[in-house]
Amino acid sequence: MPEGKESKLAQIEQHISANLADFLSQHVVAKATSLEQIEQHFSDFRVPEQPDFVSSHAEVLLDKLVAHSVNTYSPTFIGHMTSALPYFQLPLAKLLVGLNQNLVKIETSKAFTPLERQVLGMVHELIYAESEDFYQHYLHSAGHSLGAFCSGGTIANITALWVARNKALQPCGEFLGVATDGLAAGLIEYGYRNLGVLCSKRGHYSIGKAVDVLGLGRRNMLMLDCPDQTLSPEQALAAGKAYQEKGNKLLAIIGIAGTTETGHIDPLDELADVAAELGCHFHVDAAWGGATLFSKSHRALMRGIERADSVTIDAHKQMYVPMGAGMVLFKNPQDANAVRHHAQYILREGSKDLGATTLEGSRNGMAMMVHASLHILGRQGYELLIDQNIAKARQFAEMIAKHPDFELITAPVLSLMTYRIHPRKLQGQLASGQMSPQHQIHYNGLLDQLTVSVQKLQREAGKSFVSRTRLEISRYQEGPINVFRVVMANPLTQLSDLEAILEEQLKIAENTEFWAELTQ
Amino acid sequence: MPEGKESKLAQIEQHISANLADFLSQHVVAKATSLEQIEQHFSDFRVPEQPDFVSSHAEVLLDKLVAHSVNTYSPTFIGHMTSALPYFQLPLAKLLVGLNQNLVKIETSKAFTPLERQVLGMVHELIYAESEDFYQHYLHSAGHSLGAFCSGGTIANITALWVARNKALQPCGEFLGVATDGLAAGLIEYGYRNLGVLCSKRGHYSIGKAVDVLGLGRRNMLMLDCPDQTLSPEQALAAGKAYQEKGNKLLAIIGIAGTTETGHIDPLDELADVAAELGCHFHVDAAWGGATLFSKSHRALMRGIERADSVTIDAHKQMYVPMGAGMVLFKNPQDANAVRHHAQYILREGSKDLGATTLEGSRNGMAMMVHASLHILGRQGYELLIDQNIAKARQFAEMIAKHPDFELITAPVLSLMTYRIHPRKLQGQLASGQMSPQHQIHYNGLLDQLTVSVQKLQREAGKSFVSRTRLEISRYQEGPINVFRVVMANPLTQLSDLEAILEEQLKIAENTEFWAELTQ
Repeated sequence: MPEGKESKLAQIEQHISANLADFLSQHVVAKATSLEQIEQHFSDFRVPEQPDFVSSHAEVLLDKLVAHSVNTYSPTFIGHMTSALPYFQLPLAKLLVGLNQNLVKIETSKAFTPLERQVLGMVHELIYAESEDFYQHYLHSAGHSLGAFCSGGTIANITALWVARNKALQPCGEFLGVATDGLAAGLIEYGYRNLGVLCSKRGHYSIGKAVDVLGLGRRNMLMLDCPDQTLSPEQALAAGKAYQEKGNKLLAIIGIAGTTETGHIDPLDELADVAAELGCHFHVDAAWGGATLFSKSHRALMRGIERADSVTIDAHKQMYVPMGAGMVLFKNPQDANAVRHHAQYILREGSKDLGATTLEGSRNGMAMMVHASLHILGRQGYELLIDQNIAKARQFAEMIAKHPDFELITAPVLSLMTYRIHPRKLQGQLASGQMSPQHQIHYNGLLDQLTVSVQKLQREAGKSFVSRTRLEISRYQEGPINVFRVVMANPLTQLSDLEAILEEQLKIAENTEFWAELTQ
Repeated sequence: MPEGKESKLAQIEQHISANLADFLSQHVVAKATSLEQIEQHFSDFRVPEQPDFVSSHAEVLLDKLVAHSVNTYSPTFIGHMTSALPYFQLPLAKLLVGLNQNLVKIETSKAFTPLERQVLGMVHELIYAESEDFYQHYLHSAGHSLGAFCSGGTIANITALWVARNKALQPCGEFLGVATDGLAAGLIEYGYRNLGVLCSKRGHYSIGKAVDVLGLGRRNMLMLDCPDQTLSPEQALAAGKAYQEKGNKLLAIIGIAGTTETGHIDPLDELADVAAELGCHFHVDAAWGGATLFSKSHRALMRGIERADSVTIDAHKQMYVPMGAGMVLFKNPQDANAVRHHAQYILREGSKDLGATTLEGSRNGMAMMVHASLHILGRQGYELLIDQNIAKARQFAEMIAKHPDFELITAPVLSLMTYRIHPRKLQGQLASGQMSPQHQIHYNGLLDQLTVSVQKLQREAGKSFVSRTRLEISRYQEGPINVFRVVMANPLTQLSDLEAILEEQLKIAENTEFWAELTQ
């Protein structure tokens, strides 16, 4: 029984529906509260004995949770990959929960199963552009799969490498395959000391999780230096060969299409050549950058992605869908069969149950959100968003490059960039290369502290937010440096917001102890 | 910019909010449409070029998707574990998407991080009932974790076994642990031929996925026969010893607290003894049954769960939260450190970022739904739901047992049961044991076909739904039989609904070819 129109929860809902930005700016407290203070509100560890009124719990949610959540809609919060969503996602969220389907099998999802397959087909076509016959044959084929939906890019990357591992150690003679006989037996059967995965140091942390979970061991994760932020095909080939000469087998090369930290795209086409030469699986982690394929002007950046055996794309990043919509696509519709599994009461053989080839079991119908976005925005709508983000990132980069007290560290390839505050007095000296290594280390150390301090104070002030990371870059050979990281994803962000952010950062910086030391 | 109040999507939303049951009964088409017909609506494989109006897409969603989805709210759909949800989950779903937090780290989730930790603490306390000091120390401790939220029970089970594997092959001398050095090196280091997992044949299919993904191999999944639907501690001990005598190491015993197929609970306390004797991890898969702990009358069924090293619970099952809310809890707050990982820009060492010990990366704030349910329903509210479900299941079981043309196969321990149609004429003969094995096989074969046929026709008629599975049971030694499976989870289901279901099934059965053959 719904509460009345005037109940607290109903009021919250009406406010969200009428004007989400206004709801958030009214209820999300701008000033930072310490985590320890927030934890006080969530310190009770016993399930409450008595039921509570919905309205009084709604008050608690507003005061304790919403007030201290992150305003991802704010145009000045440009540090992360989540941003404002199209408004139609709000009522769809309600429909999703109202229907509460379970996508693991058709019996609990019905039309959601073909819908999800269609979405996977559309994204597959966007990447691989196979023939009409291909899609007519495979889109709804019980024994095939164009990909898998999952909660996010991490599960997508793990799924891709799981498939690659099971294909590399597939059944052969009396060996029933790694899925049945296990990894150790598989290595012996095929005569491999180890299975390894190769990517650049900008590879996502989920790769490390994958090699751990899959039993390969992080020692077999070959993460190559990339002072220019992309993986060198020559070095990849050399490292792969050297690895294999020691009796190991390189399982997969991972090309990144939009690194999490700088947005760079690895030379995918050249890496596909390397993978072909080494005879290994080629996976592309396009969790962030995949949506660039919607843009006619920028999709050339992704050249070679169509040669990948598998591709990860997160719809909850640049496809503007709520959190929880990852996808992995397979070039070969047979590949997912390397991880196919059955059960008596579910996923029966020959069924079209999606759960038969996914890492997750029960899953919600998030594909509906992606389906809606693909139709309501269309390719052209996405193109507009992508093009605008990249254009805005370039404008911001120019703004930074021109500013005497800022230093652009990595220029935007997609809509990410990194930079730092660097007092004009020092810039010439440090960048000229005339400074001694010891001095360079000293000053970069101070600049590192300045960056951390400004980022933290800026976040605590609550007006704006950029993130930070630590990068090796070719310009400074003495070691990695701290940088601000900006993700241009929010369509509401204006150039004036960006100007204000630089101004605010500089003001904060000037009041730190480090500034005085750097400019004395 | 929200569409006007009269737009199609706004109308849908208002209808859902005002009366979800009415919305579903108006829009979900009762009569079954073939999957092939539904697939026609989702056969376009190209991303639409042009944007579409929200309202026209809403029409498409209603006609093509909602119409052919599963009405999980219907009181006569008693075949699955998803059912009607409390209405307050609907506006919360909108709030969740409106806030769109990412729980992987504090920077993108703020108060959601302590909230999720609190929910994990509450469920931990429900299971383990540790001291006040314990929770004050560990609830928000950066270096510890009482458990992990995840998309569902499959990921929870995989996480538990991942932790168990990494603990069993932990760093030792020059060996840096399985996470770093890999599984094959770990087996050699510890002198194990294989690592195995033991459970009954009622173990969830996710266990098979876990041993595949983790590299152990399905061959090392010891699934013991369980004609009485529960794992025998004696047989588990004997099988574990025999396995270890061959040079293997039993990694974990999995006790099931509410099997997916029949709702039976393994003898957890005795299995904890077996695990202690074998020196292995004890995991309890309480994805379905965990919520029984809320009930004072029934929680004794779970005796021994407090001795488990890890426990899986799905809040989207008997905790009445929308799909996508799994949890794994760890008795020892140190355990999750066996899978801890870090990255430069995220999950920094010493941070409280939840992503440092989860299998998934980016995740949504589903914990808010669980938090709300725990407070709004309270322990007493959950107790009422659990007790009612079990009482209703027992009443239905009695109804079946009394009916001359039905046969109760497994009586409800929790709120699940299985049964089949069995014409009265045959029941005496078959059950008496006086029938020859050949005849038994013949008649059970016909009954199997009858069950499949009735379940299918009933589903297609669209008025009601029970699921079906295939079970070994002690009464029929000649092999597994097909059964209807009922899950009593919907608070809206009345006894009269259940009577009508039996009546409908019998009527369908009488019109099949098998009925005639069985009763001639």
